[in-house]
Amino acid sequence: MAEPQIHHLNGNDRRPKVLMLNQSPTFALFPSLFTQKFRILKAWESEQPLDQFLAKHARSVHALLGDRHTVVNAELLQLLPALRMVTVTCTGVNQIDLAECRRRGIAVANLGGAYSEDVADFAVGLLIDVLRRVSASDRYVRKGFWRSKGDFPLGFKLGGKRIGIVGMGKIGIEVAKRLQVFGCSIAYTSRNKKPSISYPVYSTVQELAESSDAIILCCGLNDQTRHIVNKKVLSALGKEGVVINIGRGALIDEKELVRCLVGGEIGGAGLDVFENEPYVPKELFALDNVVLCPHRAVHTPESFQASAEIAIANLEAFFSNRPLITPVTND
Amino acid sequence: MAEPQIHHLNGNDRRPKVLMLNQSPTFALFPSLFTQKFRILKAWESEQPLDQFLAKHARSVHALLGDRHTVVNAELLQLLPALRMVTVTCTGVNQIDLAECRRRGIAVANLGGAYSEDVADFAVGLLIDVLRRVSASDRYVRKGFWRSKGDFPLGFKLGGKRIGIVGMGKIGIEVAKRLQVFGCSIAYTSRNKKPSISYPVYSTVQELAESSDAIILCCGLNDQTRHIVNKKVLSALGKEGVVINIGRGALIDEKELVRCLVGGEIGGAGLDVFENEPYVPKELFALDNVVLCPHRAVHTPESFQASAEIAIANLEAFFSNRPLITPVTND
Repeated sequence: MAEPQIHHLNGNDRRPKVLMLNQSPTFALFPSLFTQKFRILKAWESEQPLDQFLAKHARSVHALLGDRHTVVNAELLQLLPALRMVTVTCTGVNQIDLAECRRRGIAVANLGGAYSEDVADFAVGLLIDVLRRVSASDRYVRKGFWRSKGDFPLGFKLGGKRIGIVGMGKIGIEVAKRLQVFGCSIAYTSRNKKPSISYPVYSTVQELAESSDAIILCCGLNDQTRHIVNKKVLSALGKEGVVINIGRGALIDEKELVRCLVGGEIGGAGLDVFENEPYVPKELFALDNVVLCPHRAVHTPESFQASAEIAIANLEAFFSNRPLITPVTND
Repeated sequence: MAEPQIHHLNGNDRRPKVLMLNQSPTFALFPSLFTQKFRILKAWESEQPLDQFLAKHARSVHALLGDRHTVVNAELLQLLPALRMVTVTCTGVNQIDLAECRRRGIAVANLGGAYSEDVADFAVGLLIDVLRRVSASDRYVRKGFWRSKGDFPLGFKLGGKRIGIVGMGKIGIEVAKRLQVFGCSIAYTSRNKKPSISYPVYSTVQELAESSDAIILCCGLNDQTRHIVNKKVLSALGKEGVVINIGRGALIDEKELVRCLVGGEIGGAGLDVFENEPYVPKELFALDNVVLCPHRAVHTPESFQASAEIAIANLEAFFSNRPLITPVTND
């Protein structure tokens, strides 16, 4: 449903224009947080074709508000010559052509660490679930097997497990902090060694996997990280190794992962993301050593509100010529 | 299958006799750890009726090795006049008549904190699962609903939740330690206020529940704690409140719990234990806000080995007149 049009009809509307190409859950949950400060141009509600809608606003739109479904590529940017800022209510920015934005002097902001805690909580939840077989044993109970078949097979202890974190950014740090208190030992691999972090660092994911009982994928998706978990990494992880993915589906060669899980070549997996969501490979449905979630790691009502507030703070900073709150950098 | 009988046939067998009434998983997994040090009298393998078997060994049996299924009551103790020590490979001792043991000068040892970490890990796993809906969303994906019905409902953030721990013993402390790092705030109720613990303490479970978003039952089962979570406590917890039980089923009035869950009077539950295991109330099978596990919180292969080692250490201490390693006390 459209917002009340009062401001829009008012020639004195001083709210800065912000373009949105698609509805996002953050905006849908908290529309008035945005509309009380900005005049939101909702491309998805226009009856005009997108290029005509954009052409109409091309010279006056300086800011774009998007989410993980908002593809910002060279083609779109060409239609928006006045654009100077993109802010997205998500953490990953693989949907944005960052190089082209940089070339055009367009600043990009994401959510920074707003979702990090929720994602880290979920990653730990998936790891406990896979190791201690929580959802598998819940299925066992619900099928009545506890009475008819007796004890459920044992799971594995968290304490002492060697956890390899792929990508030691805000999420990776939160995951490490949590798992340390369970008595896990932490190592990581990251684009750059972080001088402030004392965990052992490996230069490749394969080396990390060789020395880990479980790896947790906490990095962004880009050309360098696509299929960063391939056949070699999975085989380095080995028969008892576990993969947790709360990053993006395409970080893993999914076909290879399914083959390894079905063939018992790795120990288990906790997956919140998949290569072609909402498609999930059917072979996984029959397995008890996998936990399959529908891309929910980042989503709690609390985190949606936090993300609305951060996006708004970034837009306000931009329109008052202050530095962005959570700019995307390439460090 | 019986152990090799070599030692038993040897008149010079100096291993101290230890009576077992029932097979236990710890013994079944690591029999030789025990038999290399003790002559285990396996009542369950004897063809004699139990009272005859016990009568035969009544004067020579000083130590009994049991588990949570080994009922040690006045009736049994009368048949074992020479008994001076009971050690069990579990944490709970509700199956043992502690007062009668004390009266007869029989020392009792349990596992102390051997399982605490595993149980605490599981408690945290259940809490994350209930709040973030991990196993419910796994079911959703496996049924193909992500593709056919779209996004799964949101869960709730852990950070900021007020967690009430019922029983601040070894397990409660481990649970608190873990949840603090998730940003939860901790309060507790316990038989005695622990001077070394700085979390706020409440004098009743009901008051604790009134001030908590979730309560976690970490106490032992005894006459004082049976049905400690009753109708009043559940109603104090309220419509969004969560109960996690990794203690014993009878800590909760299960009938009342089922009624509250079915009627939406509390928010959810994560249950590893039930009043009449392996029976689980069928009404719970249809609910998405409960996680049901088959009494597995304490069980990993690593913890079974630890528990064998502790039981053996207690037996060795007893037979060499040293203090028990992990005596059951009433503090």
